[in-house]
Amino acid sequence: MKQDKKIPYKIYLEEQEMPKKWYNVRADMKVKPAPLLNPGTLQPMTAEELGAVFCDELVQQELDNDNAYIDIPQEILDFYKMYRPAPLVRAYCLEEKLQTPAKIYYKFEGNNTSGSHKLNSAIAQAYYAKKQGLKGVTTETGAGQWGTALSMACAYLGLDCEVYMVKVSYEQKPFRREVMRTYGASVTPSPSTTTEIGKKILAEHPGTTGSLGCAISEAVEAAVSKEGYRYVLGSVLNQVLLHQSIIGMETKAALDKYGIEPDIIIGCAGGGSNLGGLISPFMGEKLRGEKDYQIIAVEPASCPSLTRGKFAYDFCDTGMVTPLAKMYTLGSGFIPSPNHAGGLRYHGMSPVVSQLYHDGLMEARAVEQTAVFEAAEQFARIEGILPAPESSHAIRVAIDEALKCKETGEEKTIVFGLTGTGYFDMVAYEKFNNGVMSDYIPTDEDLQIGFNGLPDVPEK
Amino acid sequence: MKQDKKIPYKIYLEEQEMPKKWYNVRADMKVKPAPLLNPGTLQPMTAEELGAVFCDELVQQELDNDNAYIDIPQEILDFYKMYRPAPLVRAYCLEEKLQTPAKIYYKFEGNNTSGSHKLNSAIAQAYYAKKQGLKGVTTETGAGQWGTALSMACAYLGLDCEVYMVKVSYEQKPFRREVMRTYGASVTPSPSTTTEIGKKILAEHPGTTGSLGCAISEAVEAAVSKEGYRYVLGSVLNQVLLHQSIIGMETKAALDKYGIEPDIIIGCAGGGSNLGGLISPFMGEKLRGEKDYQIIAVEPASCPSLTRGKFAYDFCDTGMVTPLAKMYTLGSGFIPSPNHAGGLRYHGMSPVVSQLYHDGLMEARAVEQTAVFEAAEQFARIEGILPAPESSHAIRVAIDEALKCKETGEEKTIVFGLTGTGYFDMVAYEKFNNGVMSDYIPTDEDLQIGFNGLPDVPEK
Repeated sequence: MKQDKKIPYKIYLEEQEMPKKWYNVRADMKVKPAPLLNPGTLQPMTAEELGAVFCDELVQQELDNDNAYIDIPQEILDFYKMYRPAPLVRAYCLEEKLQTPAKIYYKFEGNNTSGSHKLNSAIAQAYYAKKQGLKGVTTETGAGQWGTALSMACAYLGLDCEVYMVKVSYEQKPFRREVMRTYGASVTPSPSTTTEIGKKILAEHPGTTGSLGCAISEAVEAAVSKEGYRYVLGSVLNQVLLHQSIIGMETKAALDKYGIEPDIIIGCAGGGSNLGGLISPFMGEKLRGEKDYQIIAVEPASCPSLTRGKFAYDFCDTGMVTPLAKMYTLGSGFIPSPNHAGGLRYHGMSPVVSQLYHDGLMEARAVEQTAVFEAAEQFARIEGILPAPESSHAIRVAIDEALKCKETGEEKTIVFGLTGTGYFDMVAYEKFNNGVMSDYIPTDEDLQIGFNGLPDVPEK
Repeated sequence: MKQDKKIPYKIYLEEQEMPKKWYNVRADMKVKPAPLLNPGTLQPMTAEELGAVFCDELVQQELDNDNAYIDIPQEILDFYKMYRPAPLVRAYCLEEKLQTPAKIYYKFEGNNTSGSHKLNSAIAQAYYAKKQGLKGVTTETGAGQWGTALSMACAYLGLDCEVYMVKVSYEQKPFRREVMRTYGASVTPSPSTTTEIGKKILAEHPGTTGSLGCAISEAVEAAVSKEGYRYVLGSVLNQVLLHQSIIGMETKAALDKYGIEPDIIIGCAGGGSNLGGLISPFMGEKLRGEKDYQIIAVEPASCPSLTRGKFAYDFCDTGMVTPLAKMYTLGSGFIPSPNHAGGLRYHGMSPVVSQLYHDGLMEARAVEQTAVFEAAEQFARIEGILPAPESSHAIRVAIDEALKCKETGEEKTIVFGLTGTGYFDMVAYEKFNNGVMSDYIPTDEDLQIGFNGLPDVPEK
């Protein structure tokens, strides 16, 4: 392996070098993300209205478009020390294998039991719930990374944790379910008969195996109908991107420590939590005109919210009980084909990421899943880490960009987010190993069904 | 969390501080481990005889009782950089929860896709096979950690990898199997019809779900009956302990860096690879009379080779095709109760560890599995990491010792090996979560069956 003697294989920040503040990219955005709207009045949600669903301090963070830096409470910094700093890895082996002049780095967020970056926001949301004296929190989970992360955070703080898990995942991913139970969470398959909306969905679609949008509706209802509970969400929201900025802050600190300047920054995008967090401080520099970077969001061709969605107000859930968010969306009724194996199956995209994309500050690419798993397998064999299917979307484009450099001879520096590990995704890998994985790209007609369900919100 | 400002939560060595040599504890042992014997002649195995099964350079390492330090080849050092250094973690949260004056540290070897320390020896063995110009290697795997580790090492080096996987694990742990396949290994359920010994075992026990001893027999046969292949083994052997000494070397370097002196060192023990590796440099100091440490091997009460086995020559496999090793053994015909959920199910123990234990240089404790899973769950909730059942044996005794300190007020420093993660062991956790896990301690009569099968080797 050829190694630049000045740059270690893995860059770990020292404990005292770890960031102590989150960075709020909204403060530097000229066009702010549109506010959440009350679906009844179509007026911006007030702090009071949001406070019925979310913890008070998280509501403040959700609405704060002004403060660029927010101190991370000491208790959260302590928890971060349990699994952070995450290493910034120089992919020397991958570079050698690809014979590219590009320099490739990845920020690896999978070295914790949740297997992903989700823990960064889970501990923050659980902490504020605890601080407010609440008994517990409710949430939904699909593949289970977010539910696991929240279970871990709640176990650490002694909070009750109720997880509504998409039924198909509950049944097909029993191991994820058991990890959450080991951390003391109660896990309910969704749709369930424990909520009104669950009963309604079951009555309308008796055989349904659930969806993330469904599970959100149930978790919100469970939170607002009980004393001492609030709802928490693992992606999409402004507050989540704020917490996830720790990824970007650490990445930037590690790069700065070794004088490395990235040219391209790549992240996979489902609801936008990892991508938004990774790019935040770099986007800040770009917004302030200090630096320029090529920033690429990568999404599945089977759930292409940025590349083929509409920039419009939409519900965040299937049951239409949440506020409306202005985002790139496929419609809250959109459900990805069962053929789709990886994550990143949410119908919408974080309003912050959506606005930045709309304003031309970043690009988006949609990739097909067999190409994603090819990249995943190649990466696993060369770099050792078995990546999550979600993360492998970013790997795919990082490899593509590195191969372009091979053609042009450019020595670009590429940084991508490796959000997590694929240990609980072996059913998808098995499909790929057995050569029975195929691709699926929705037709315009397929997408129209989701668009038809968009709420009618007049432009201001 | 109360933190000693001088000691970070996690100690990561810098790349340049990583050990560049393995330490061979046999060099400092006054009584050397007994040599492997040819089962036909009962004479010590020669290098030539061993060379039919193992790579030449590994044979040298196997027989080398003299050289204390062996340079780690640069290619292996490069691979180690992909997932090492492993962090030495100060268990501040666990200490606080237990309210113990003890200081607890653990060396965490689970931050890699194999999920355990096994990769440390897998890359070494694959490297020497490659260097010798071989086409590939064969091996066995039970739970799958070793097979995964070897698959990863072989994928990296471009070697063929054939894994015989205990049939019950092959069927019940399809995800482990798929990880190995993703890394390009061929995985065969054992016993199989691809070997003579497999056919013989199947004829004698038609319904058998296999055992590690069986799979070893098949893998050895597959290696010796093909041109360009050798057999590799993930534990027990002297060479494996040598490679695993990287665990202890790093641990000692990290402790020395912060001036920490351990009182107690604890490791789980199946075949002895992790325990032997962790304790090696500390045992060296003890053997040379420079320091004294309390060293504790922890094994399952259901497979108690050290605490209830015989110190005798025995076969390493069920099919009785391997050389004889002098070790603490339950007899090569011993098969742990199906009730036993975790790993550490091998009938024997590394000859090096066996000799050290026999000479009174360390203690051994047997623990029951429900107590082990209680410790695992407590640890997961407090320290965040979901431990492998194997590793949790060490956690159990570390907690027990910390609680003793609470009673006596002693501020002992405890170091234990956290060998890996439990992500592929959720079936066992599910049993525990559902309250249907029970304990099993073999009676003396149960054990006698294994002892009756011990080969008759006259004392010298």
